[in-house]
Amino acid sequence: MGADGVHTVNTTERLAKLRELMKQHSVQAFVVPSEDQHSSEYLANCDKRRAFISGFDGSAGCAVITTDKAYLFTDGRYFLQAEKQLDKNWELMKQGLPDVPTWQDFLYKNLEPATRIGIDATLIAASDAESLTKQLAPKHSKLVSLKENLVDVVWGEDRPSRPKNPVFHLDEKYSGQSQVDKIAKLREEIKKKKAEAIVVTMLDEVAWLFNLRGSDIDYNPVFFAYAVVTMDEVILFIDSAQLDDTARQNLDHVYTKPYYYIFEHLNGISRNLELGRESKILLGDRASLAIADAIGKDNYTIARSPIADLKAIKNKTELEGFRQSHIRDGAALVRYFSWLEEQLNRGAVINESQGADKLEEFRSELDLFRGLSFDTISGTGPNGAIIHYKPDPNDCAIIKKDQVYLCDSGAQFLDGTTDVTRTWHFGTPTNEEKRAFTRVLQGHIAIDTAIFPNGTTGYVIDSFARRALWQDGLDYRHGTGHGVGHFLNVHEGPHGIGVRIVLNNTPLKAGMTVSNEPGYYADGKFGIRIEDIVLVREVKTPNNFGDKGYLGFENVTMCPIHKNLVDVSLLNEQEKKWLDDYHAETWEKVSPLLKDDTRALEWLKRECSPL
Amino acid sequence: MGADGVHTVNTTERLAKLRELMKQHSVQAFVVPSEDQHSSEYLANCDKRRAFISGFDGSAGCAVITTDKAYLFTDGRYFLQAEKQLDKNWELMKQGLPDVPTWQDFLYKNLEPATRIGIDATLIAASDAESLTKQLAPKHSKLVSLKENLVDVVWGEDRPSRPKNPVFHLDEKYSGQSQVDKIAKLREEIKKKKAEAIVVTMLDEVAWLFNLRGSDIDYNPVFFAYAVVTMDEVILFIDSAQLDDTARQNLDHVYTKPYYYIFEHLNGISRNLELGRESKILLGDRASLAIADAIGKDNYTIARSPIADLKAIKNKTELEGFRQSHIRDGAALVRYFSWLEEQLNRGAVINESQGADKLEEFRSELDLFRGLSFDTISGTGPNGAIIHYKPDPNDCAIIKKDQVYLCDSGAQFLDGTTDVTRTWHFGTPTNEEKRAFTRVLQGHIAIDTAIFPNGTTGYVIDSFARRALWQDGLDYRHGTGHGVGHFLNVHEGPHGIGVRIVLNNTPLKAGMTVSNEPGYYADGKFGIRIEDIVLVREVKTPNNFGDKGYLGFENVTMCPIHKNLVDVSLLNEQEKKWLDDYHAETWEKVSPLLKDDTRALEWLKRECSPL
Repeated sequence: MGADGVHTVNTTERLAKLRELMKQHSVQAFVVPSEDQHSSEYLANCDKRRAFISGFDGSAGCAVITTDKAYLFTDGRYFLQAEKQLDKNWELMKQGLPDVPTWQDFLYKNLEPATRIGIDATLIAASDAESLTKQLAPKHSKLVSLKENLVDVVWGEDRPSRPKNPVFHLDEKYSGQSQVDKIAKLREEIKKKKAEAIVVTMLDEVAWLFNLRGSDIDYNPVFFAYAVVTMDEVILFIDSAQLDDTARQNLDHVYTKPYYYIFEHLNGISRNLELGRESKILLGDRASLAIADAIGKDNYTIARSPIADLKAIKNKTELEGFRQSHIRDGAALVRYFSWLEEQLNRGAVINESQGADKLEEFRSELDLFRGLSFDTISGTGPNGAIIHYKPDPNDCAIIKKDQVYLCDSGAQFLDGTTDVTRTWHFGTPTNEEKRAFTRVLQGHIAIDTAIFPNGTTGYVIDSFARRALWQDGLDYRHGTGHGVGHFLNVHEGPHGIGVRIVLNNTPLKAGMTVSNEPGYYADGKFGIRIEDIVLVREVKTPNNFGDKGYLGFENVTMCPIHKNLVDVSLLNEQEKKWLDDYHAETWEKVSPLLKDDTRALEWLKRECSPL
Repeated sequence: MGADGVHTVNTTERLAKLRELMKQHSVQAFVVPSEDQHSSEYLANCDKRRAFISGFDGSAGCAVITTDKAYLFTDGRYFLQAEKQLDKNWELMKQGLPDVPTWQDFLYKNLEPATRIGIDATLIAASDAESLTKQLAPKHSKLVSLKENLVDVVWGEDRPSRPKNPVFHLDEKYSGQSQVDKIAKLREEIKKKKAEAIVVTMLDEVAWLFNLRGSDIDYNPVFFAYAVVTMDEVILFIDSAQLDDTARQNLDHVYTKPYYYIFEHLNGISRNLELGRESKILLGDRASLAIADAIGKDNYTIARSPIADLKAIKNKTELEGFRQSHIRDGAALVRYFSWLEEQLNRGAVINESQGADKLEEFRSELDLFRGLSFDTISGTGPNGAIIHYKPDPNDCAIIKKDQVYLCDSGAQFLDGTTDVTRTWHFGTPTNEEKRAFTRVLQGHIAIDTAIFPNGTTGYVIDSFARRALWQDGLDYRHGTGHGVGHFLNVHEGPHGIGVRIVLNNTPLKAGMTVSNEPGYYADGKFGIRIEDIVLVREVKTPNNFGDKGYLGFENVTMCPIHKNLVDVSLLNEQEKKWLDDYHAETWEKVSPLLKDDTRALEWLKRECSPL
């Protein structure tokens, strides 16, 4: 399906080999999760096992292979992409639709009783394995940890090697807090939880804790490492050859040990720490079964990672970095969109991938730029409706003046991470397109202007983003907002705005970052999304009922929202004022950066003029 | 605290007697739930055990008495009332505030280990008892079912006897469905759940199923009864002397047995029905531990009551009855409020209770009137901030022209049940009062105009009602809406709009009734609530994304919303139009019923004029 920029892989041979191995290991099913051993969402190529075996390379999904079937589970963001990429060997399981089980439920509801289900213990969270094992017990099925990953065996010599790129220190003028302070804070949290130590398994948590950054995974400035923090010592498990001078100089009092040594180290840790009934090692809830098994059954306690909570609340330096990096990022966006409009008006032929490259070129000229934060989504017409579309440079659509064009992109800067979506129509949009865009915009404004008491979760305010769409019988099958790391992963927990009930566990707090990205997707026609990054902040309200304090958002994304797609008759006065105010602020902040680009400056002036 | 219309009872002697009995029964704690043996919210006097022992007579709460302390647990609606009513023997536990446990959590978290906790098994749900028992086990505490209710023993001869009022048949022209049809539908549900029979324990479910109504509990047209429905027979457990001729004539093929005989009958039922591993008796999730114990441990399965789900979706006749009864009810409200304004303008002295009586007088003249649906809340100034305030006729406040006056009232009609709150200021309201009223009104309008896809719950749309209040740092500590019975209980599940997570289990469906009642309460100053009843209905939207169908509300309450309290500058054009349209509809529907009351008609005209 090259025309859509997505390819199908023939998986017949791979599956045959895998089933042969399954037979040898006496397992009747094999689970291939999306994540690596650090529960990462984005993966190094060596860890893209699910993509290798199924052909589907979206960022979320799980494959379950049985002796005669192969199932790929994914969510609404990826239904279209998976349909295009999976070959005839695969059955797509659309999670979230009625009567479609999750892959976990599927294992005990749909597989035969007494099934032995093979799994790589480094790739499944210990907490998930525990609940799965409980669910499977009444059916006499069980998870079987295999010593080798069967997909890796099938992959063989073609499997890429694990990256070992340089790791550097992030200066405190960007991070705002020394690693010594962070470790002290972390030790307080360990004590509060009455534990003796913590094993840090998430790559972005390791990076945040040590103020280190790397590039082992595309778009994510992280590196392969684990860490163990006790009350007396700090050990970083990493290939020490990766550490550059800045990193080494800032790792006083931190022992380094080889990356793979973590398992051996944990094997002896309960004896070394003299753990007892009341003293355990803390594991974050995404720590793998392999990590938990290495520590030993009675020696750990699994909880929400305290680092995730600490990291989610940005300090003043990080927040200011978010503001500044987004202004610079806005300048690149304006240069790109103004260039694109001019090209289309001239009749130039620009494809989606060339557009994305041009945007990257503008971004790469910006101060403190360190690469993109994810694959640029650059989709014209029907491709805009593929929620996580990535144009294939060798085979993608031409951006057309008479189609809706959706561009979701972001960058990594030393002072912050950006993620922004704008939707354009450089010709004359249809009434349907304008109405849908305006409904999305109303939802976007409703989130941006929301005020809510402390204690409110993103689950509760999600409906604000959908209300205007619902009025027209429209909706979107993805969340409204995700947390954003500071020069770290563009998707960051534990909070978010959305319909997943787990988001009801984490109240929004001042200092958090979150995206605001309602959308609408008309399959086969067009896609619309308007995405800004907002900072959660305390707001002064005339009253303070309940003495909780009230919160609101500060929008840091600075890029015009396309008035050409707005049906002004649908907006009320407050909404019109919001848009005009937003454009005035964008002009004020971004125009000084465009002194050398007259085209961009003129375009920005026009796009930022009042309604 | 007579001035506020609430009294304190000296409970010293009662508690001393109770503790003596607790000692005799070797229990160190005794739980006195709010509910009767049918899990009723409103109670016959003989069942008001918690009010008797604690002095607090609000409709929700639970008392836990230990050897040296007494705790009363209630929620935000009743904090003020409970503070006023409880004497020094009691500690008020404000459920919903941070760090305040529920009474269930309290039993295992706060009581000493190995506590024997006395309970009357008829007064606790079997499902609650089961989860409580599990929670208590690690602490070696346990629930102990006592043969006699210790509060009843303390109460002694002063305890009122159980009412045995006449029970009559509700004609199909009001109910819209024969009891034969209802039982057939119920049997389908029993089969779907693979059960052999159901025990109906909720009083409103029995009344609905048999199209019978009574008056054993004030404001609730129900009667004391249980029912057992198998595939072959239907047994109604009731004092048959209560059945009037209309009831008897419509109970063909229904066996009647004495009310208390239910336990004896259930004792033999597993043998009689030849129940096995796969054939169980269905119990609703509010069925008591005593009922479950009578059936026997392995012979029942607890599920959401299918009758609750059937009853919640009103048929066409019931929906039309709701519309018509609300128009008549509106006429009585208009007559009362116009009368009250005239009295206050004349300088007449009317107290809160006299106001409520006058309203009841107007209502009692209406067609098909069968009494009030709950105690009228008639509160001036600070009393309006007591969310479930009931004025004491002998000792209550004078309604003042320069105070906010809140009136929440409703009636039972053969064709429907009403529940409406209006808030007035017959003088010159302060800016604070107007602003708060307008924020409440905006929340009310946001619910009324909401459109949402099938599958959406009242938990998800609750935030619409609070958004405008939150903008000013305001909120309210109660739900936004409850289901309403059809000539049945004014509070009816299983759905609702609110912040309790259990409301996220039941999507709103076409045919449901629900109140829309955001509010704001300034303790010690004033209370504001605007409450209408809305019907859930399918709506036509320009699109139907997800093919789910979209729902909205139809407002049936017809009574002006006080423009004198509206700060028009806060409203947007849609909100102004909503209010004008609502008033035009109210005038059109209610004015024809006021031909003989010039005062009311003139007043309605003025109140319904455009902004």
